[in-house]
Amino acid sequence: MAIITLTSDFGPKDHFTGATKGAIYSELPDVNIVDISHNVSPFNIPEAAYIIQNAYNSFPKGTIHIIGIDSEINAENKHIAVKLDGHYFICANNGIMSMICSEIVPEKIVEINIHDKILSSFPVLDVFVKVACHIARGGTLDVIGKTITSIKPIQNIKPFVKEDQTQIIGSVIYIDNYGNVVTNIKRNFFESIQKGREFEISARSYKFKKIHKNYSDIVNFDIPIEKRQDEGRKLVVFNSGGFLEIALFKSNPKTNGSASTLLGLGIMDTVTVNFTSTPIDTTKTHIALDERF
Amino acid sequence: MAIITLTSDFGPKDHFTGATKGAIYSELPDVNIVDISHNVSPFNIPEAAYIIQNAYNSFPKGTIHIIGIDSEINAENKHIAVKLDGHYFICANNGIMSMICSEIVPEKIVEINIHDKILSSFPVLDVFVKVACHIARGGTLDVIGKTITSIKPIQNIKPFVKEDQTQIIGSVIYIDNYGNVVTNIKRNFFESIQKGREFEISARSYKFKKIHKNYSDIVNFDIPIEKRQDEGRKLVVFNSGGFLEIALFKSNPKTNGSASTLLGLGIMDTVTVNFTSTPIDTTKTHIALDERF
Amino acid sequence: MAIITLTSDFGPKDHFTGATKGAIYSELPDVNIVDISHNVSPFNIPEAAYIIQNAYNSFPKGTIHIIGIDSEINAENKHIAVKLDGHYFICANNGIMSMICSEIVPEKIVEINIHDKILSSFPVLDVFVKVACHIARGGTLDVIGKTITSIKPIQNIKPFVKEDQTQIIGSVIYIDNYGNVVTNIKRNFFESIQKGREFEISARSYKFKKIHKNYSDIVNFDIPIEKRQDEGRKLVVFNSGGFLEIALFKSNPKTNGSASTLLGLGIMDTVTVNFTSTPIDTTKTHIALDERF
Repeated sequence: MAIITLTSDFGPKDHFTGATKGAIYSELPDVNIVDISHNVSPFNIPEAAYIIQNAYNSFPKGTIHIIGIDSEINAENKHIAVKLDGHYFICANNGIMSMICSEIVPEKIVEINIHDKILSSFPVLDVFVKVACHIARGGTLDVIGKTITSIKPIQNIKPFVKEDQTQIIGSVIYIDNYGNVVTNIKRNFFESIQKGREFEISARSYKFKKIHKNYSDIVNFDIPIEKRQDEGRKLVVFNSGGFLEIALFKSNPKTNGSASTLLGLGIMDTVTVNFTSTPIDTTKTHIALDERF
Repeated sequence: MAIITLTSDFGPKDHFTGATKGAIYSELPDVNIVDISHNVSPFNIPEAAYIIQNAYNSFPKGTIHIIGIDSEINAENKHIAVKLDGHYFICANNGIMSMICSEIVPEKIVEINIHDKILSSFPVLDVFVKVACHIARGGTLDVIGKTITSIKPIQNIKPFVKEDQTQIIGSVIYIDNYGNVVTNIKRNFFESIQKGREFEISARSYKFKKIHKNYSDIVNFDIPIEKRQDEGRKLVVFNSGGFLEIALFKSNPKTNGSASTLLGLGIMDTVTVNFTSTPIDTTKTHIALDERF
Repeated sequence: MAIITLTSDFGPKDHFTGATKGAIYSELPDVNIVDISHNVSPFNIPEAAYIIQNAYNSFPKGTIHIIGIDSEINAENKHIAVKLDGHYFICANNGIMSMICSEIVPEKIVEINIHDKILSSFPVLDVFVKVACHIARGGTLDVIGKTITSIKPIQNIKPFVKEDQTQIIGSVIYIDNYGNVVTNIKRNFFESIQKGREFEISARSYKFKKIHKNYSDIVNFDIPIEKRQDEGRKLVVFNSGGFLEIALFKSNPKTNGSASTLLGLGIMDTVTVNFTSTPIDTTKTHIALDERF
């Protein structure tokens, strides 16, 4: 049974998501429709790109992902279908796919050209659903569009590295449900620049010298639980998607603030990493991945 | 496989929706349960009516729609099941169905009378699920209720038209996820009064003389993208449901306000359309549907 | 077809829920995945315990419930799988199961020990999904963990009763989508202490002498509808889960405030019930269950 996922900025209340699912079932009774997120901030391409990148590859190969963000077609915003990593993505050519495509080369990209048959003011429902069901029935991308070779990029996907390799200048790309601050600095990239050197991460006036593997690494379990004051402590981790994240331990934005609010960090704000000038013994990693302190 | 949709004001957090789904699966293992919305404002009948009207007919004929808004049974609030347009609706007789029924005549309405067998303080779970599963198994409405011929109306479904046909007085019936303002003025109705005349739409102190087909119709693509200032511009469209809507281009209520907040328009507020007194050449539509400016 | 439910504090926006579903479908193509709630307040164990307790038993026996709240494994927070009442629960041993287990004795509890095979920073995805799919395929709990006999408790599950049986001191354990205030005083427990006596419920400066069966019991249907002023009136009910709840009639927190805001009652605040000292005629219940006033 085919799987079609949905990611959009339709929000939790409007009829758009329900109508889209109805249209899919009308074309394809046997299908699993899975919501990834409908709470992307309106028209926020980078947010959608982050969410879909982190969700898609848990699904089986062959899954079809509909992404409904800023999808009204016009002279500058065409519809595309992308085959990549064994998955299919259907969306507007507005940068959403550029984060994934910066890491994995697409197998095929087509610009969808079935619009002459469709009069639409709700393109997810009318166009994306048709394309998704076509693919789910085993149809090829060639039938619904013409091959193109590049897609629209978005800015700030990759952090900037100083020429002498002593500094990474990253950006905040996502604030998660816990108010934790996710940067565009990925672990592999970080380590390729770090080359074993010590480092200091700066976010506003805060400095961090360790990157943890788990949030609870900062807890000293030798102290009796009633004497600990760990909740809300700031720390840096590589999150489960591999992104450098500034977090609070057991963060609850509703009660105690969050990394985002306490550090004053929002989307596109800068987080820098400074390395010691001399690379040190590279056989030994100094990222405190498994270390408690 | 039967499809049962759910629309409610249960919100995103409480157990009600999950429990309802569990009860359906307990009666009917092979069923597709589809959420339309659980974020209807508490007890807001018009909002629910708008959402279900715009979602239901994307689903295949035979779909069963459970609507759980203000569904506690009492002397004035009976439970009904309605067959209409090939779909089944199960809800309280509180006005939710009156928006759909104002456009399409129901095939059958029954007042549900299976309550003597059920001691319930959660009618969606106990009553609506039982009725839905009965219908999904091929059962008739006659078995679960007695036929009635009319249902409770809600106010402000239809706009008011001045006797001399020079003015439509409409109401705001919905604010969507983008903060766009949806009125009760539908395209067919508008055109039947307009008869090709020019018009001016008034909402608070704002005036509009065009109704667009697409949101991006207001963009002048000849201007370089970095010089445009279209985001957040006000415009009027007939939305994908056919309703006259006052919108912002690429509206994001969290950052820049919305049509609702910037124009100060809330539910039940008035939007008027004034027509020039003399009907003009009716062979030519003056609604700027496909026109760029 | 197996049913796997999901309850978490992942929120409505992040990729975590979508990724979890993708991982389940990757292991088990034929499965029904049902969301119970992803809007549990971050790290809020009692809230999750309340939600899962009220949702789980609407599902068919054999259903597998994944609960992803505070699930990072560490020295003090182990992963467990519990078989109880014919259902399976997979979660951290952090108190979530103690509310259900205080009423129903578990058939089996195991501490999950498959972690040596898994390097994880997203335990719901990596560990809980694996365990759930193992159970869905008919696997036993013994294969994935070692039996333990007790689980971590949470506080304030049970109300306190004064030694002379004249007073119950309860706590608020949940605020629902309507802003209604749910206490830890369950109907059976209340009646076992009440023994037919009259009572007065105190919440802040408010007093209540009746517990209703239905919210609309407070409406006098003899008064013409346009003269009634019932919306927003305070009342006490046993809710559909059997918990004593302080509610507003047709409560809409967005417009008129809620029981929680108007009475100033939040989680863990106290609600007391005082009984008259002498038990009265116990053949006649004084709880106004079916009575209108």
